[in-house]
Amino acid sequence: MKGFNGFVSLVGAGPGDPDLLTVKAVRRLKQADDVLHDALIDPRVLALASRARRRLVGGRVGSCHDQAWINTLMVELAGEGSRVVRLKGGDPFVFGHGGEEARALLKAGVPFEVVPGVSSVTAAPGLAGIPLTHRGVASGFAVITGHHEATWRPMLRAIRPGAMTLVVLMGLGSRAQIVRALTRQGWPGWMPAAVVLAASTPRQRVWRGTLSQLAEAPLDATRDGPGVMVIGDVAAYAETESVAQPFAAAIA
Amino acid sequence: MKGFNGFVSLVGAGPGDPDLLTVKAVRRLKQADDVLHDALIDPRVLALASRARRRLVGGRVGSCHDQAWINTLMVELAGEGSRVVRLKGGDPFVFGHGGEEARALLKAGVPFEVVPGVSSVTAAPGLAGIPLTHRGVASGFAVITGHHEATWRPMLRAIRPGAMTLVVLMGLGSRAQIVRALTRQGWPGWMPAAVVLAASTPRQRVWRGTLSQLAEAPLDATRDGPGVMVIGDVAAYAETESVAQPFAAAIA
Repeated sequence: MKGFNGFVSLVGAGPGDPDLLTVKAVRRLKQADDVLHDALIDPRVLALASRARRRLVGGRVGSCHDQAWINTLMVELAGEGSRVVRLKGGDPFVFGHGGEEARALLKAGVPFEVVPGVSSVTAAPGLAGIPLTHRGVASGFAVITGHHEATWRPMLRAIRPGAMTLVVLMGLGSRAQIVRALTRQGWPGWMPAAVVLAASTPRQRVWRGTLSQLAEAPLDATRDGPGVMVIGDVAAYAETESVAQPFAAAIA
Repeated sequence: MKGFNGFVSLVGAGPGDPDLLTVKAVRRLKQADDVLHDALIDPRVLALASRARRRLVGGRVGSCHDQAWINTLMVELAGEGSRVVRLKGGDPFVFGHGGEEARALLKAGVPFEVVPGVSSVTAAPGLAGIPLTHRGVASGFAVITGHHEATWRPMLRAIRPGAMTLVVLMGLGSRAQIVRALTRQGWPGWMPAAVVLAASTPRQRVWRGTLSQLAEAPLDATRDGPGVMVIGDVAAYAETESVAQPFAAAIA
């Protein structure tokens, strides 16, 4: 490595809408020499990095490249003096392997920073009018990913049925198995459920129903992208969307 | 109400640093006629609302005003044609009574929108180098508030000991009771724990230790503000901070 002129920013891209980037994320994108981004980053967000070499290196839904390869690339680019933005959907430290990348950079002695982003864990329900907590209804929430059965199955077993709001990221493809597992553990079939698709983008839409309906809901992970599933009494509060959305569009 | 010229934006102020506001939050603050804000909002954030009447109406640590009073005020101001920003720390729908306010606005027919913010749930650990999830270490996390014993106690009982990362907001004042409750349920005393104070501000600092040390840690909710507690194996990953912070300051 030539020296410490280069650096890496681990940046959260938020849920999609460029308006939901942080001020700092916008600045880092504009300054960047290299942007290494995940799949499913909104093109309007990538367009902000107008002077950067942009490269798709990985994603939450299936990795394009090996994590070790990404780590090495970041270290090499920073060593060449590049201002590198490692751009991840949502927040870099929530199901984004941000921890692994931070450790690799630390080990290599590469200066870096973390720029937190708006996580779809909170933003997607919020934009659909669903509060994750609500006085007298839900006092806490648990967040898991539906990506690997070996990780979600023990997580579901670790939560007492119906005790808190359950948020599942990347769970559309495995929702039938997840619903089955929850039901077997004692979550009632009438428990409200909602799925927020493409939150904060013009394609945002919300499916509403019950836990038992969720398995058969006409949703498709490939077509609809990675939805955010919310299971719990608060999911029934998804009614503000119809008011909030046209209004937001009208004054944007 | 005179009509629908006014509107309300329920805006998340993020963890503190104005650079971690979203682009949309900055725009809404600059446009606002009235800002109704919680306690503990960073003064640099409030300063962005230069043309607005600013009013402290509530907070997460003890409410200044009754929720019903706040709801009525929002409806009245919007009815008078005001562009109202209801500004809450972090994200408006995470332990912020955002759901109650949204419902009140909906019921009153007041046009409103939700502008999600960077929640300290994810940002505070991230800025301290703690990933809430980490491959092979933690595949999920649960979030509770330590504000009311009647709500946190059942939440703690609902999670299998050590199964996922536990994030506690507003729990500094009750941490001795929380540690006792967790220990009684079977969480091991050696479990790593961390507290992130004043995340993203110049006063940010991180306490690191174990669950059993947390009860006696020299922290004070009144002096240190509302810290974010992280309990779980990932809390031991709080080592990147020393690299990330001076660097971030240097290139800001």
